[in-house]
Amino acid sequence: MAQAVKRLFPNAKLAIGPAIDEGFYYDFDVEKPFTDEDKLKIEEEMKKIIKEDLSIERFELPREEAIKLMEDKKENYKVELINDLPKDAVISFYKQGDFTDLCAGPHLPSTGKVKAIKILSSSGAYWRGNEKNKMLQRIYAISFPKAGQLEEYIQLIEEAKKRDHRKLGKELDLFCFSDYVGSGLPLYTPKGTILKDELQKEVEKICRKYGFQKVSCPSLANISLFETSGHAQKFNDELFRVASPKGHEFVLKPVQCPHHTQIYASKMRSYKDLPIRYMESDKQYRAELQGSVGGLSRVYAITVEDGHSFCRVDQVKDEVINMCNIIKDLYSKMGLWENHWVSLSVRDYGHPEKYIGTKEDWDLCEKMLQEVSDELNLDAKKCEGEAALYGPKLDFMFKDALGREVQIPTVQVDFSTPKRFGLFYIDENGEKQYPVMVHRAILGSYERFIALMLEQFNGVFPTWLSPVQVKILPIADSHIEYANQVKEELQNAGIRVEVDDRQEKIGYKIREAQLQKIPYMLVVGDKEKEANLVGVRSRKDGDIGAQKIEDFISKIKDEIENYVR
Amino acid sequence: MAQAVKRLFPNAKLAIGPAIDEGFYYDFDVEKPFTDEDKLKIEEEMKKIIKEDLSIERFELPREEAIKLMEDKKENYKVELINDLPKDAVISFYKQGDFTDLCAGPHLPSTGKVKAIKILSSSGAYWRGNEKNKMLQRIYAISFPKAGQLEEYIQLIEEAKKRDHRKLGKELDLFCFSDYVGSGLPLYTPKGTILKDELQKEVEKICRKYGFQKVSCPSLANISLFETSGHAQKFNDELFRVASPKGHEFVLKPVQCPHHTQIYASKMRSYKDLPIRYMESDKQYRAELQGSVGGLSRVYAITVEDGHSFCRVDQVKDEVINMCNIIKDLYSKMGLWENHWVSLSVRDYGHPEKYIGTKEDWDLCEKMLQEVSDELNLDAKKCEGEAALYGPKLDFMFKDALGREVQIPTVQVDFSTPKRFGLFYIDENGEKQYPVMVHRAILGSYERFIALMLEQFNGVFPTWLSPVQVKILPIADSHIEYANQVKEELQNAGIRVEVDDRQEKIGYKIREAQLQKIPYMLVVGDKEKEANLVGVRSRKDGDIGAQKIEDFISKIKDEIENYVR
Repeated sequence: MAQAVKRLFPNAKLAIGPAIDEGFYYDFDVEKPFTDEDKLKIEEEMKKIIKEDLSIERFELPREEAIKLMEDKKENYKVELINDLPKDAVISFYKQGDFTDLCAGPHLPSTGKVKAIKILSSSGAYWRGNEKNKMLQRIYAISFPKAGQLEEYIQLIEEAKKRDHRKLGKELDLFCFSDYVGSGLPLYTPKGTILKDELQKEVEKICRKYGFQKVSCPSLANISLFETSGHAQKFNDELFRVASPKGHEFVLKPVQCPHHTQIYASKMRSYKDLPIRYMESDKQYRAELQGSVGGLSRVYAITVEDGHSFCRVDQVKDEVINMCNIIKDLYSKMGLWENHWVSLSVRDYGHPEKYIGTKEDWDLCEKMLQEVSDELNLDAKKCEGEAALYGPKLDFMFKDALGREVQIPTVQVDFSTPKRFGLFYIDENGEKQYPVMVHRAILGSYERFIALMLEQFNGVFPTWLSPVQVKILPIADSHIEYANQVKEELQNAGIRVEVDDRQEKIGYKIREAQLQKIPYMLVVGDKEKEANLVGVRSRKDGDIGAQKIEDFISKIKDEIENYVR
Repeated sequence: MAQAVKRLFPNAKLAIGPAIDEGFYYDFDVEKPFTDEDKLKIEEEMKKIIKEDLSIERFELPREEAIKLMEDKKENYKVELINDLPKDAVISFYKQGDFTDLCAGPHLPSTGKVKAIKILSSSGAYWRGNEKNKMLQRIYAISFPKAGQLEEYIQLIEEAKKRDHRKLGKELDLFCFSDYVGSGLPLYTPKGTILKDELQKEVEKICRKYGFQKVSCPSLANISLFETSGHAQKFNDELFRVASPKGHEFVLKPVQCPHHTQIYASKMRSYKDLPIRYMESDKQYRAELQGSVGGLSRVYAITVEDGHSFCRVDQVKDEVINMCNIIKDLYSKMGLWENHWVSLSVRDYGHPEKYIGTKEDWDLCEKMLQEVSDELNLDAKKCEGEAALYGPKLDFMFKDALGREVQIPTVQVDFSTPKRFGLFYIDENGEKQYPVMVHRAILGSYERFIALMLEQFNGVFPTWLSPVQVKILPIADSHIEYANQVKEELQNAGIRVEVDDRQEKIGYKIREAQLQKIPYMLVVGDKEKEANLVGVRSRKDGDIGAQKIEDFISKIKDEIENYVR
């Protein structure tokens, strides 16, 4: 694509062009944004280059020569990139026909191996993602080794657009954005808040059964908290810094674990007190690239349902089993369990230096996780090099509506953090011992989970989760009073209910409730009012006839309480 | 006090010395912190100065002469303060005997009018509260016009120390602090979290009855949100700024209202949709002076139960009445209602320029609030000059354990904010109209409310609010199994229960549960086990005899559900 752009726009300067989850992009410094016509021309030129089947050759240059080459080509962004490379870096280039680019590789042997391409979109993007820098023009595209794959992809995209959680979120009035507040910062409306709260209640209910206790921590901390845990180094420029004119200096928490260690540390603990299990649904902050944020799937503050168990070594395995069971319980209830596989993410055995902790601890942990996988029939696939810094983990992988893999729940064993914070408990002999920390995420973040659910189920939520469970539709104004009586009865039974008292035809009201994906509509007219009945329509099955109010209430309450998709 | 210090430590430099809620303080630049002996000497010297009955005289100087006077006295902090005064400021001094100080006044006519003084404490404090500046030594003291008042005060202080919420919070394991996290940033333990959650559930339950809907907003926003609302100017150096190495710039919200306007603005609203009422319990951030934070009563992040109604002018009065009723409902349930008075906080009629909005709007609002006060028998006392920038309010004042007045709930009428954000609704004629915003706070902040309750009730919470409602005390190890059975039955009924299964004497277990202020203890031994009974002890009434488990459950559930203190 860069070659095609240079052929058509010789003055364009090249910035960076990485592969991403879905295809690739390239940033160009050009005088004005690319028009739709420009993009069609670029696509045509790319197809030509494929036909030319240019062979792609790699070569390396010493730093000075590399800089000279790029200076000659007036590629000042590339010069800046080379200057930023570490001293001992190998500096490699790839050449295809009349085009040469700085690149670490690898590349295909020739341009003819690409069988299908498509330009997806274009947008402005700041150099290095910093809005103080120059605005460049980014083109997103995708390529495939087989022609048929492009068609499949286009179909999937069309389907996904209909199910886009941003579109559904607006139609169902679940969340909104404001220019005053800023992008990447969604505001949950009353209906979206119900969704989030109901999910939280459900996770907490399940976790409480397994001994988790809720705690509540501040969003701010001295940076020393995260320096000690290692997160300051890990998150580095994703950390939000907080300051005031009075000289305060804090960071916004990027994770929850270090705060939880401090609640553990606030009291003397005995071996009899363990395991101690904390959970918390709170916002965590990451300075995502400006321009990369959008909808609910990438935001500056994610609300994470986070949990940690502090336990003895002999309790680790049971704790991991508990957490896997929690995950299974919740995802089964949601109807997502069938759609998963499990990764036993172990260390990279060739590079033990990448991890902290002893070989014995690692061997023990990996063995335990393998046993858990066997006992629970998780059929976990061993993935080397996918472990966390401090220990191996079980990652639960799901597919989103686009067929992309998403990792959501995870269970991680951690011998290291308790040592870093000097946590301890007193064992049977009165000696101090380090506890083990087992980390677990169930929903991941509420934001990504809601986005996933919206797209997976096309906005149709089960009754227990629906923001509005019942909509009462009076046929005429004379039925509004009765509709409000029915509403009160339902409300007293704890059901979320609304009355559509607008002066509209009943057909219109039904269509609209259907579009709002409301599980039950209760049509009330003269007949229903006289006989103290409601005309029940289900979103799924349409008209299911008149029922006594109390019968409808007991039926829907049973559905809410005992729901499994 | 400053005169006494200068007599005893002639090299001490004077910084600032304001009156505060409880007495006053003065910051001194001295070589080393004041010892207890120093403080006794200063107290003696202060008593001498009172006996001398020096007359106190005010005089003014032009800026240059004022600076010269302070330079001659080598008071460099005072020189800095004078330089910072606005150009047209009157620069006044007060002289008593050998001592002269820069001060806006007013002062007593002579030192003899003070009848009792006491030095309360001392601490380090940074010049201008900024930790990048020099550390000064602060002395806190208090004075009274009658000698007897000092004794009363000392008694109150002694009583308050026993009830100090920080002491009780630690004893009852409700919250903790960590040096890694930082002061002013409390962490709620599982028990403290239950307290906060139960309070939240209760407020939300009451507010939902009055039509409030929960929303959920991010903690961050572009500063333009608060520049538009006026809060950026108002909070100024209390605003926490958020930045990242990637160039992000946000502020942490100091209040909730501007975010709520943006949810209102996300949809077209009709006159039929109003009132729209939002509520949210979320953290709000204020960069309090370092050194002023402590316990739960002054923290960097307060969790505020905030609510707003967007309504038509003809609905304002009913909205205010609703909100007053919510306040009455909750505070009555808590047993705090008897201990209040209401301020009708109106504008300063002599200075209309201090407020925004038209005279007509103000007259209307003040009249409405007076009517509400009359109709609800609030007997509100008109307090001139206590209104908010944008409108008058009803403030509910309570007394804390020290007898100090605390303003907690408030209801405020605001014509201005909707105009600043260009909010509107469509009226019956299809015209755009501004809605009115009614602000209300019920609990104030959870942190201050919990501190107040802890001190007011000496850590004794009603059963519905107690983190642990029942403690089961097995007499011997052989009763632990039965104790756990009872525990499960109670848990299934939704009661918060623990078993004390330590190998301790029953008397010890009872004493400890009593110290933990647990409402009910269930003693179980052979007799109880055989007859399927529990030996009930109430915290209040002691032993109240053996009961069937199901009888105890139905009794305590009734107490929880129908509690009014």
